[in-house]
Amino acid sequence: MKPDLSIESLALPHVAAMHAYVPGMQPMESGWVKLNTNENPFPPSPKVIEAIQRELANEARGLRLYPNPTSAPLRATIAAHHGLKVEQVLASNGCDDALNLLMRVFCSVDRPAGMTVPSYSLYTVLRSIQAAEMREVEFDRSFELPIDAIASSGANIFFLTSPNAPTGVSFAPERIAELLEKFSGILVVDETYAPFAEQNCVSLLADNPRLVIVRSFSKAYALAGMRTGYALANPEVISLLDRVRDSYNLDRLAQVAAKAALEDQAYYQGTIEATKVLRDKAAASYEERGWFVYPSAANFHFVEPRKGGGAGKAVAQDLFQCLLDNKILVRAFPNHALTQSFLRISVGSAEEMNRLGEILDAWQKK
Amino acid sequence: MKPDLSIESLALPHVAAMHAYVPGMQPMESGWVKLNTNENPFPPSPKVIEAIQRELANEARGLRLYPNPTSAPLRATIAAHHGLKVEQVLASNGCDDALNLLMRVFCSVDRPAGMTVPSYSLYTVLRSIQAAEMREVEFDRSFELPIDAIASSGANIFFLTSPNAPTGVSFAPERIAELLEKFSGILVVDETYAPFAEQNCVSLLADNPRLVIVRSFSKAYALAGMRTGYALANPEVISLLDRVRDSYNLDRLAQVAAKAALEDQAYYQGTIEATKVLRDKAAASYEERGWFVYPSAANFHFVEPRKGGGAGKAVAQDLFQCLLDNKILVRAFPNHALTQSFLRISVGSAEEMNRLGEILDAWQKK
Repeated sequence: MKPDLSIESLALPHVAAMHAYVPGMQPMESGWVKLNTNENPFPPSPKVIEAIQRELANEARGLRLYPNPTSAPLRATIAAHHGLKVEQVLASNGCDDALNLLMRVFCSVDRPAGMTVPSYSLYTVLRSIQAAEMREVEFDRSFELPIDAIASSGANIFFLTSPNAPTGVSFAPERIAELLEKFSGILVVDETYAPFAEQNCVSLLADNPRLVIVRSFSKAYALAGMRTGYALANPEVISLLDRVRDSYNLDRLAQVAAKAALEDQAYYQGTIEATKVLRDKAAASYEERGWFVYPSAANFHFVEPRKGGGAGKAVAQDLFQCLLDNKILVRAFPNHALTQSFLRISVGSAEEMNRLGEILDAWQKK
Repeated sequence: MKPDLSIESLALPHVAAMHAYVPGMQPMESGWVKLNTNENPFPPSPKVIEAIQRELANEARGLRLYPNPTSAPLRATIAAHHGLKVEQVLASNGCDDALNLLMRVFCSVDRPAGMTVPSYSLYTVLRSIQAAEMREVEFDRSFELPIDAIASSGANIFFLTSPNAPTGVSFAPERIAELLEKFSGILVVDETYAPFAEQNCVSLLADNPRLVIVRSFSKAYALAGMRTGYALANPEVISLLDRVRDSYNLDRLAQVAAKAALEDQAYYQGTIEATKVLRDKAAASYEERGWFVYPSAANFHFVEPRKGGGAGKAVAQDLFQCLLDNKILVRAFPNHALTQSFLRISVGSAEEMNRLGEILDAWQKK
């Protein structure tokens, strides 16, 4: 007679003990002002939709057939866009897929990961799946890059978000080059928001084989719904990631959508500039209210709301609830001293930002 | 001064030592007869294309917005289709995603996986990423289910493909129920090809909390290009898989495509029946040639070609090359005694099977 084993006893203990990543609320009904997950207020390029339509209409290459396993045409377009070799590019199912693969190659029970705190909470979840330690390097309120602390963290792979989340602050490539001189592990710079910034680290790839850059089509390219992202690194790193990658990680429509997006820079330069105008206007309006705002190089703001001269966790929570009651979604981070008195608010459309302004006016008068 | 670490020394040793899964050849140019990856010769339901078009046209739910993180509407449809609760369903980015998650939850350096040999070679790749041992249970040429050998394999999680790949042979649910009585780990029955078979294991879920069934939209639903699959299991297993799942693993178009496919059973019953007719005709033709063919409950055949009375690895390789020279792709498995004299040939359209027949005639006469 076999022993009667429970599911929990069969599961790996560290998985049974962990918690899943909690994504921002995605309401299924309409009527919400969604400023909680940094989606783009503008639609994707019409050429993206045309590329999807062409793929749907192409009977010789129909949906019944497997996609290109490596997303080769998309990789070639990404490489050309950044002036890199195709061997330096991995295409992924959202940038989360790339982050996950990086953890699986460079992080384990005896090879710690590292991250700045506060930062993207998915990193913690991904290292938990690997049963690995997380070396947390604390920011101070200045949110300047803690180079020496990262260099001495002992992490085998370190995750840095630039422009940073949740602050929106961008780190200068010169500082990241300095970090690469001092840190001996793999440095992942998560550049999800880089197309909104004035600077990025792509030029550092040439001289730094331990640098990995992760990018996304979800924000600047307005394709969160299509789950596409990529990693840029030296060919040896890309080859390792490809070994653990799902053999068909991107479907046919996602591949052509991302490719068409990257090829229509004229359209996206327009929407990115328009987003920056909305962003700078929003920053000015938060400052007019007397709120502290980090200088954002992304498409969101990390703001410390004030009411009656006071700020703090209770004030942030009160505003969060007030916005929720008015069907406006923003993001709160109540679990860290540096974030609990703040809210992260995406840059929405002009109409959405006007609606937000009305509710903020009413809240401050209450 | 930091030590100068190589990428290889930073990578996990078991990842640096492993090999990636090698998918079947996916030529990018047209003109090939593709009988190598068991794609459906019929296109997906027109309602699938309509559902994608509706999603593309829906501005309130555009591609700029994240998809439903759990694919909740798709899970509900899958649950209803199988008469299960929604808590028993996971939606995945192809069934490979589900298989990968199962490995990450139930398999590690001290918890071996198991599989029958020969079988789907991806299982070996997935356990390699987990640095886990693989307990291989050898079939004999009868390809009958080796129940006692599986039960005593010591695997924490065992992967069984039914209908089997590469043979196409289906195992009776009664035998799998018997196996579940004797085996004490997680039993994954990979039912990628089950819609083509007369039997499946879904009814066993009610009494067997350690049973997991994996399904795919790639074959019977003609959506290989959309990367959608699912797992059926008890809610505790699904909850564990959800913890390690990418938080947005399926894009918007894949979610609506799979949902629409499952809802159009009338269409797919037609194409499945038509595939079976083509399958049985193909089996008869292989037998007429004097070849050994396993009885297929899937959409492919595992055939042992004969020429001039002889069979064997050289004969199979010779035919493989001859077909390749004529732009017909099939799959060879030269690395195992039970498979080296065989080829796996998908059931293609009537035209494709006629073309195949012509080349086989010519080859046998040479």
